[in-house]
Amino acid sequence: MTFDYFFKPKAIAVIGASNDPLKLGYEVFKNLKSYRDGKVYPVNVKDDEVQGVKAYRNVKDIPDDVDLAIVIIPKRFVKQAIVDCGEKGVKGVVLITAGFGEVDEKGKKEERELVEIAHRYGMRIIGPNCVGIMNTHNDMNASFVMDAKRGSIGFISQSGALGAGIIYKTVKEGIGFSKFISIGNMADVDFAELMEYLADTEEDKAIALYVEGIKNGRRFMEVAKRVTKKKPVIVLKAGKSESGARAASSHTGSLAGSWKIYEAAFKQSNVMIADTIDDMLSMARAFTQPLTRGNRVAIMTNAGGPGVLTADAIDKKGLKLANLEGKTIEELRSFLPPMAAVKNPVDMIASARGEDYYRTAKLLLEDPNVDMLISICVVPTFAGMTPTEHAEGVLRAIKEVDNGKPVLGLFMAGYVSEKAKELLESEGVPSYERPEDVAAAAYALVEFARARGVLKDE
Amino acid sequence: MTFDYFFKPKAIAVIGASNDPLKLGYEVFKNLKSYRDGKVYPVNVKDDEVQGVKAYRNVKDIPDDVDLAIVIIPKRFVKQAIVDCGEKGVKGVVLITAGFGEVDEKGKKEERELVEIAHRYGMRIIGPNCVGIMNTHNDMNASFVMDAKRGSIGFISQSGALGAGIIYKTVKEGIGFSKFISIGNMADVDFAELMEYLADTEEDKAIALYVEGIKNGRRFMEVAKRVTKKKPVIVLKAGKSESGARAASSHTGSLAGSWKIYEAAFKQSNVMIADTIDDMLSMARAFTQPLTRGNRVAIMTNAGGPGVLTADAIDKKGLKLANLEGKTIEELRSFLPPMAAVKNPVDMIASARGEDYYRTAKLLLEDPNVDMLISICVVPTFAGMTPTEHAEGVLRAIKEVDNGKPVLGLFMAGYVSEKAKELLESEGVPSYERPEDVAAAAYALVEFARARGVLKDE
Repeated sequence: MTFDYFFKPKAIAVIGASNDPLKLGYEVFKNLKSYRDGKVYPVNVKDDEVQGVKAYRNVKDIPDDVDLAIVIIPKRFVKQAIVDCGEKGVKGVVLITAGFGEVDEKGKKEERELVEIAHRYGMRIIGPNCVGIMNTHNDMNASFVMDAKRGSIGFISQSGALGAGIIYKTVKEGIGFSKFISIGNMADVDFAELMEYLADTEEDKAIALYVEGIKNGRRFMEVAKRVTKKKPVIVLKAGKSESGARAASSHTGSLAGSWKIYEAAFKQSNVMIADTIDDMLSMARAFTQPLTRGNRVAIMTNAGGPGVLTADAIDKKGLKLANLEGKTIEELRSFLPPMAAVKNPVDMIASARGEDYYRTAKLLLEDPNVDMLISICVVPTFAGMTPTEHAEGVLRAIKEVDNGKPVLGLFMAGYVSEKAKELLESEGVPSYERPEDVAAAAYALVEFARARGVLKDE
Repeated sequence: MTFDYFFKPKAIAVIGASNDPLKLGYEVFKNLKSYRDGKVYPVNVKDDEVQGVKAYRNVKDIPDDVDLAIVIIPKRFVKQAIVDCGEKGVKGVVLITAGFGEVDEKGKKEERELVEIAHRYGMRIIGPNCVGIMNTHNDMNASFVMDAKRGSIGFISQSGALGAGIIYKTVKEGIGFSKFISIGNMADVDFAELMEYLADTEEDKAIALYVEGIKNGRRFMEVAKRVTKKKPVIVLKAGKSESGARAASSHTGSLAGSWKIYEAAFKQSNVMIADTIDDMLSMARAFTQPLTRGNRVAIMTNAGGPGVLTADAIDKKGLKLANLEGKTIEELRSFLPPMAAVKNPVDMIASARGEDYYRTAKLLLEDPNVDMLISICVVPTFAGMTPTEHAEGVLRAIKEVDNGKPVLGLFMAGYVSEKAKELLESEGVPSYERPEDVAAAAYALVEFARARGVLKDE
């Protein structure tokens, strides 16, 4: 199965593309203008041009094959548009228009009918009642949400607004996605199919799901079991509490069901459970790193406090602090200042420069008792130092040692460390700002290794 | 007891103020130049001017009474400087210089000697081995850390670097402090005394502590029991895990001790325990709001997902979702669209404008079954809407109803909602970006009400 026509279409029609900045069809077409892998055609029933581009009255008038149609028109016109798309030979429809199954039984019936029409033409529908989809790797933003930062997480959200909120939040925080899929009412395409597609792509390193309720649990589990053999799947489930579940059920119309049942299903299919949005993002971001072979973590830091908090967070996740070899400790002692702590966590103290980061990271990565490294940098308090030299030191060590052990960064200095974070991330080393987030990432690496059966005996 | 000479001094001497931008004494003097409540004098053994200000060879040469001295000179000169301060009649010394008790037994002895000298002159010492202190309410930044944003949290940190990291982080996130106190080795002034001082100030609405190890546990508890009757105290304890505790002990030299013992002590003295830095900040920020009378929370939102996640987070903290009165539900139904959910959480859906926020907030605050309100706003997806109008609506309702129930904001839209957040916060309504943070704040309000004995029967 391939959903390439959704995420790498050769030509896209925006049915409802608009010149009126107050309409969502304006935003969608504007966002799609920067699409790199194909053409984008506006469809508008009355304007000859949309945002300076020649428009068509009907999708069928477009003098080109169209794989994907984004539909964002008043509800009463949707059915005809779906028929038109079918006749045109469109393969995928992203139906943004709302007012269907989320409203009432009549709406449910209407959206089922749309799906039947689509299937008759061999066409698939994402939505209705969604905010759209994005593929950051070819600059396809087929949504009315701002561009997400490019990254490695394939994110599927059952709440459009929450999904959008997460995009806005991550843009501010510098966290990226490979794909964002607002799945809406899941009248046709659902979590299972999308997971299966994302399992085989290059650019999606992990799959993150925001779930309110799953309709076909058995199928979800079957697919998840298969997918999690290839790629990590992380789920944030809303409605864990009774009151939350009640609210979720009134929101999506899907029965939220008991959290206990979901929890058991996720665990059986090796889907990792996130507690919060940040937990989900932190875990999913970890997978630009290689698989870990064990759960013994080494921590290096230029300040004691953050090292201690990270050790606590690692412990809380059930991971272990590595017992460094005597040889490693001796060599650390040979160049670090007397006040440094050379046991794990290794506290190089505030005087640590890039060279100290390099030498320490090298020794820790080479230690056979270490499976994974967390490198921490707080505000360098010594004048003339920058977090960037620290990041450079760590990167040099990783390249030199090159033994496939995962490395994660933790920078706790707000704006001051943004450049260093970006540098590490540009080399695929995920970097965090909070001890609990880097611990969640380490945990996710271990859990996925366990699911894949490559974790050494613990 | 008053530490006003530390936080509202009439004149400050910076011993070790420097013209060399690579020295910490440069940063400290530069930061202190904007101090508003008194004069700042540089002391430098060789330069006649420091950063354009007439300098003195010795603190004793300053032609003015000096309350506070910041000492940031090589260790070998510190003892004489303390003697000079004593002879000058200085009342408080912030000793930034490191290399004392955190290094070895000899250093411990040396810092004890300094304290003895100070006490002989009736002088008190904060430090040594600290990054300095701040009072944002008179722009006193007597540290080499960047200015914190002005706020309501009195924050005492046992790790200077972590404290600094938190300042940098909060500047980026728009979170403010009233005071920041890097307590260093606590050779003299300790947590207990500072808590006692902060308990009686106007501008510190809550006291937050980052603790690695407490030296005199019994005294801490005695004071904490007293202080928590007046003001909330929130603690983040590092070294909860065994490995973390070992690391903490090597870091500060103080015995971290078993977390179980600390936990019991904190609970007995009504000190609230934070799990993470953000948890600590979220709780402490809540107290610009009035005391709650109960634990029944109403949630209003313009999107279902965030409402559900917040309901889950509230439940996890042991708080309750309020059962709205029939009358409230009826009235909500009268003006909200048919698709809105009028039970708690109230989902006004994406079309909600400022007026809807106003009317809904008013009804919820007036409902006798509601003790506290959380107002959520995700990205407004309807063109022309801004989170600001939502914030304005809520503020209007608070002012009109004026019945002393606490209100907390949750904005999940990154940059887009920054203005709205600022608006709410300028009116004392703390606003958060994550469901778990706003739930932590609600929890803290309830816990403090319980400690004060004003919580209604549950």
